[in-house]
Amino acid sequence: MTANDTRTEDRYPTRLARAAEPIVRGEPAVWPSAGGGPPDAALAAHEARGYSVVEDLLGPSEVEEFLREVRRLTEDRALRADERVVVEKESAEVRSIFAVHELSPAIGDLIRDPRVAGRARLLLGSEVYVHQSRVNYMPGFTGTGFYWHSDFETWHAEDGMPLPRAVSMSLALTDNLPFNGGLLLIPGSHRTFVPCLGATPADHYRESLRDQRVGVPSRKDITRLAEAHGIEQFTGTAGSALWFDANTMHGSGNNITPFPRSNIFVVFNSVENALVEPFAAPAPRPSFIASRDFTPVPH
Amino acid sequence: MTANDTRTEDRYPTRLARAAEPIVRGEPAVWPSAGGGPPDAALAAHEARGYSVVEDLLGPSEVEEFLREVRRLTEDRALRADERVVVEKESAEVRSIFAVHELSPAIGDLIRDPRVAGRARLLLGSEVYVHQSRVNYMPGFTGTGFYWHSDFETWHAEDGMPLPRAVSMSLALTDNLPFNGGLLLIPGSHRTFVPCLGATPADHYRESLRDQRVGVPSRKDITRLAEAHGIEQFTGTAGSALWFDANTMHGSGNNITPFPRSNIFVVFNSVENALVEPFAAPAPRPSFIASRDFTPVPH
Repeated sequence: MTANDTRTEDRYPTRLARAAEPIVRGEPAVWPSAGGGPPDAALAAHEARGYSVVEDLLGPSEVEEFLREVRRLTEDRALRADERVVVEKESAEVRSIFAVHELSPAIGDLIRDPRVAGRARLLLGSEVYVHQSRVNYMPGFTGTGFYWHSDFETWHAEDGMPLPRAVSMSLALTDNLPFNGGLLLIPGSHRTFVPCLGATPADHYRESLRDQRVGVPSRKDITRLAEAHGIEQFTGTAGSALWFDANTMHGSGNNITPFPRSNIFVVFNSVENALVEPFAAPAPRPSFIASRDFTPVPH
Repeated sequence: MTANDTRTEDRYPTRLARAAEPIVRGEPAVWPSAGGGPPDAALAAHEARGYSVVEDLLGPSEVEEFLREVRRLTEDRALRADERVVVEKESAEVRSIFAVHELSPAIGDLIRDPRVAGRARLLLGSEVYVHQSRVNYMPGFTGTGFYWHSDFETWHAEDGMPLPRAVSMSLALTDNLPFNGGLLLIPGSHRTFVPCLGATPADHYRESLRDQRVGVPSRKDITRLAEAHGIEQFTGTAGSALWFDANTMHGSGNNITPFPRSNIFVVFNSVENALVEPFAAPAPRPSFIASRDFTPVPH
């Protein structure tokens, strides 16, 4: 008997043995706030599309400051052996540093900023905590991108996140051009949960952070979503932020240009949606990938 | 003593043992026509940028006709074993069919069309012949793209094309979106010849059509060109044509979208620039890749 068998219900079953039809999502992307407040066109668009963009969340001097901070972290030889540091398969360059708000006071401060945590509270209609934070560095020439996926599918299956009441912020520290591996999104896809095939192997995260093979939606499901909704791309100058719902289907192409991409990535989860046991994995992922400290981000 | 040693001069030495500085090109991209004629802004832009786009070269019904023709050819089981047919490494799908104007009367007619051969004559200032023709099919999800290269570098080294007096037409049969693997170009790069490192192995074309490893410019040279000129992308609806100079540096990213890309690709060379012995390869490539029939395309 596994942990799952004790549950009365799993709204979003995945990692299945047989193909299953997509599930219509029950929860909103933008949750009602306690205080109510005036209608907001930007929030309505986020609800409809599953993502929204905040241009110039950081000014140019702040972008410079955080680029320096990311450079300092990625060049820190002492961090290379740290499990929080993910290295690119082929080039051996640093690709991501997880739990970066614990490693960098400056990034910790940024996450507590009202522009950041404040917006997360507004979207999720509650206090929030940091489920995951990282900086990503996709080098020029060899950046390899990520295939289509829903983050919530993984967080539900492997981390035990009950519902899609989480939101990610990808804050660009370099210009996102249409052709250097920027995020592709299927607008509106957050309303559909796509169950994936295949049981989760033990310690799957060690491989999946580089090249995911389980938790991958079928081509048929991606094609249906893309034909229904189209595909859009997050482009914009350094300092702009993409906020996207936990269940928005997204991916990225490779980057053959000489122009690298770097961003700060933070996942906020509602404190009312704290993790339980994984829904479809033998054991939870480590806390630097999926925090089990549900302390709200202070105001 | 190789064939090269008998030459008094090679303007564009490549496949070298040691890194060499880029060479400033001597020849124009748009050659003077015998008849002269009025100044043409589109031709001036082609000269300056190394490429130009003709929107709606084909109308919608023509696009349909040629898509059907390409489907017929790629589904022809009898052609699968033909050396003119190149198959994708991982998926075993047809990626290109070479010398397609000989295999398809409809595509042969298209190439003779004044919209096509006529424009090639205008650009090259002479009668032209078909150096290479092919249809390309980049499937959805798994299209892998091509790294940066100058076609002329290969045609010079491996085919014996003396000078960059050739032009390619890439005619889109599907929409080129910003994110389904469309061609990236460095505008103005056609004025710089970038010598490449490494001797050409025998029968290099068998591998290079799938994944080129010799004749690849250095990252330093690509970075210099991209920083000087920027990068642009050929996007446009089905039926539009990109004309680009033989020496324009170009490449393409991968395609994770469900949307495939298909095009007809024709290289016209000036009859005054007919092939000689390869400048940097043990033997010429086969004639289906680099024709040695220099008969002008009839008017």
